[in-house]
Amino acid sequence: MGTVSLLSDEEVSPEALAVFNDIRALRGTDYVNNFWRALAHDPALLKATWERLKVVMGPGELDPLVKEMIYVAVSTANGCSYCVHSHTAAAKAKGMTAAQHGELLGVIGMAMQTNGIVTGLQVDVDEVFRT
Amino acid sequence: MGTVSLLSDEEVSPEALAVFNDIRALRGTDYVNNFWRALAHDPALLKATWERLKVVMGPGELDPLVKEMIYVAVSTANGCSYCVHSHTAAAKAKGMTAAQHGELLGVIGMAMQTNGIVTGLQVDVDEVFRT
Amino acid sequence: MGTVSLLSDEEVSPEALAVFNDIRALRGTDYVNNFWRALAHDPALLKATWERLKVVMGPGELDPLVKEMIYVAVSTANGCSYCVHSHTAAAKAKGMTAAQHGELLGVIGMAMQTNGIVTGLQVDVDEVFRT
Amino acid sequence: MGTVSLLSDEEVSPEALAVFNDIRALRGTDYVNNFWRALAHDPALLKATWERLKVVMGPGELDPLVKEMIYVAVSTANGCSYCVHSHTAAAKAKGMTAAQHGELLGVIGMAMQTNGIVTGLQVDVDEVFRT
Amino acid sequence: MGTVSLLSDEEVSPEALAVFNDIRALRGTDYVNNFWRALAHDPALLKATWERLKVVMGPGELDPLVKEMIYVAVSTANGCSYCVHSHTAAAKAKGMTAAQHGELLGVIGMAMQTNGIVTGLQVDVDEVFRT
Amino acid sequence: MGTVSLLSDEEVSPEALAVFNDIRALRGTDYVNNFWRALAHDPALLKATWERLKVVMGPGELDPLVKEMIYVAVSTANGCSYCVHSHTAAAKAKGMTAAQHGELLGVIGMAMQTNGIVTGLQVDVDEVFRT
Repeated sequence: MGTVSLLSDEEVSPEALAVFNDIRALRGTDYVNNFWRALAHDPALLKATWERLKVVMGPGELDPLVKEMIYVAVSTANGCSYCVHSHTAAAKAKGMTAAQHGELLGVIGMAMQTNGIVTGLQVDVDEVFRT
Repeated sequence: MGTVSLLSDEEVSPEALAVFNDIRALRGTDYVNNFWRALAHDPALLKATWERLKVVMGPGELDPLVKEMIYVAVSTANGCSYCVHSHTAAAKAKGMTAAQHGELLGVIGMAMQTNGIVTGLQVDVDEVFRT
Repeated sequence: MGTVSLLSDEEVSPEALAVFNDIRALRGTDYVNNFWRALAHDPALLKATWERLKVVMGPGELDPLVKEMIYVAVSTANGCSYCVHSHTAAAKAKGMTAAQHGELLGVIGMAMQTNGIVTGLQVDVDEVFRT
Repeated sequence: MGTVSLLSDEEVSPEALAVFNDIRALRGTDYVNNFWRALAHDPALLKATWERLKVVMGPGELDPLVKEMIYVAVSTANGCSYCVHSHTAAAKAKGMTAAQHGELLGVIGMAMQTNGIVTGLQVDVDEVFRT
Repeated sequence: MGTVSLLSDEEVSPEALAVFNDIRALRGTDYVNNFWRALAHDPALLKATWERLKVVMGPGELDPLVKEMIYVAVSTANGCSYCVHSHTAAAKAKGMTAAQHGELLGVIGMAMQTNGIVTGLQVDVDEVFRT
Repeated sequence: MGTVSLLSDEEVSPEALAVFNDIRALRGTDYVNNFWRALAHDPALLKATWERLKVVMGPGELDPLVKEMIYVAVSTANGCSYCVHSHTAAAKAKGMTAAQHGELLGVIGMAMQTNGIVTGLQVDVDEVFRT
């Protein structure tokens, strides 16, 4: 269990239930995952987070699958287990193949490695990289 | 200055110079950026890092620009200034537009935000997300 | 299980037991939580950590509940599940309401989000912010 | 310089300028700090971030100064220099004394310390801490 | 379960099985731990990671036990539970005593603490520390 | 400049000056580095931090140089530039060779890399690693 309980449809406020139903409609499934059920303790935060997520992860300049992989990358670097699980699942649902998953992990690992070496060396930023 | 000096071509070992020259050949420029000049104090680590980077960031299942954006995402979450600068520059060189950069930052910000909220809530992973 | 076992009162050294009993006296409960039972493998580290915690989290310029919320914020950013659980429980015990918990998560999420965007942009610090 | 330039009032879009002016009005100063001038390359992200920040950091269940200190705590754990500078300045502007600043740093340091020790010990969460 | 399944010897490719057998030979045990079984979904990444690990953690300028303790320190700061468990076990197998483990945790905690305080203070680097 | 000014000997309290003088005596130099001069705004935090540092980094089960390298490793993973600089300098002063520095960076990079891959895979901890 988390630091708060997971709320059922019967336990949430009307505002939170409306968010749950919007999640269902957009995703085409009756399932509402645990994150939203925990967040429903604060309906305003729930609604703001969901509304923003729809915009950020929706159609735009980057491919939806690419966005999910970037989400996985950030979540991995931050060590958020739930986020890695949920967004890896979302990436697979959007077509990420096993080979792409392997490459994603390879790039994450490479970036982590050089992040560490660069920080240990405290390398000055090249003038050529500055805008 | 960093924790080590930046080595000129004249100061590095033959093994390190060979890496510098491979970087030049692959990138089509005479410029060798500071990271490699700092890393050249350990020619074996320099060579291993460069050889691995070529493989990971080279042709594969993911688009080279996508790989750079994932690299930026990880580097941002880890707070590596040099890495953010160098890989944002690399992404721009591979065609990242200002609009794509904005979306990348939006996804990074969104992921960071929910990473924090999820971790604060300590949400249990849904069974449906587990393999 | 952790990387070390949890020690019972019967298994710990007299120095560690004295710390356990001080924890009990200060908190008004017989329960000693797992962190201290794991840390008791190193009685000196146990004692130093507890003695310092008492000072830092004790009466001072900041309200005890505010201190717990700051503790939760740091622990969340660092991804320490145990710490998020234990200090969220402590905050609740010191009166944190569900509405305050929601706001705390909102601020954490906002800070994480702008931390990511600022780091991705590598914004120079304004002169006006420097002492 | 950052990964993007800082935009002057003359260089930004009307939508971004409207945000700048809202920042000025709310803060009672003509100064718009670098974060917003960098973010103005993406007016939609600028607007969404500012609108959300107003809500999260505005009046609510927690004292505005407490919110700023939580913001500093998260930014410190994430190593965001700009954010530490700007929100420490904001906290001072909202009345944080030198003594409170010292206590804030003490709590951050204490949390970081036990985050590390707990993670190294991999302590299981006590049942009593779970909701 | 993770984001991928753990592969048995019967399920992996010949290239991955060769890595498993090299792990067995080098460690003198038939047991192949979960990390490698998960990574075997991408035989090339598996092989590259293992080959590099052998070099980095093998004989060199630093004592093998010291290398494991450094590995634990990094993994702790990054909040990687699996890595803390596996490398603490490896350190114990290489002779780390309970007293050394306690000191390792003490140093990690001290470093985390001052990392937080220094970052909160945004202390300028002394000229004397720069190369 | 940081979030607070650096205090000269003339500006600090007698309690803080006593800490400065103890630092001088222990290190055999008149130089007091910036961290302590910034921390002197809170003499109690200054004293507690210094007293604890002396114990943790002093004689014990681990070699002083090993402790410094562990300190560098944690500071690198946390992205604390000042800490990386100051403790790398301290490690060099205690005899760390260029070859050892290279190996330290190699281990840090390797750990960062597998931290990322393991977290991305969300590998379950092997029973054999649990105490």
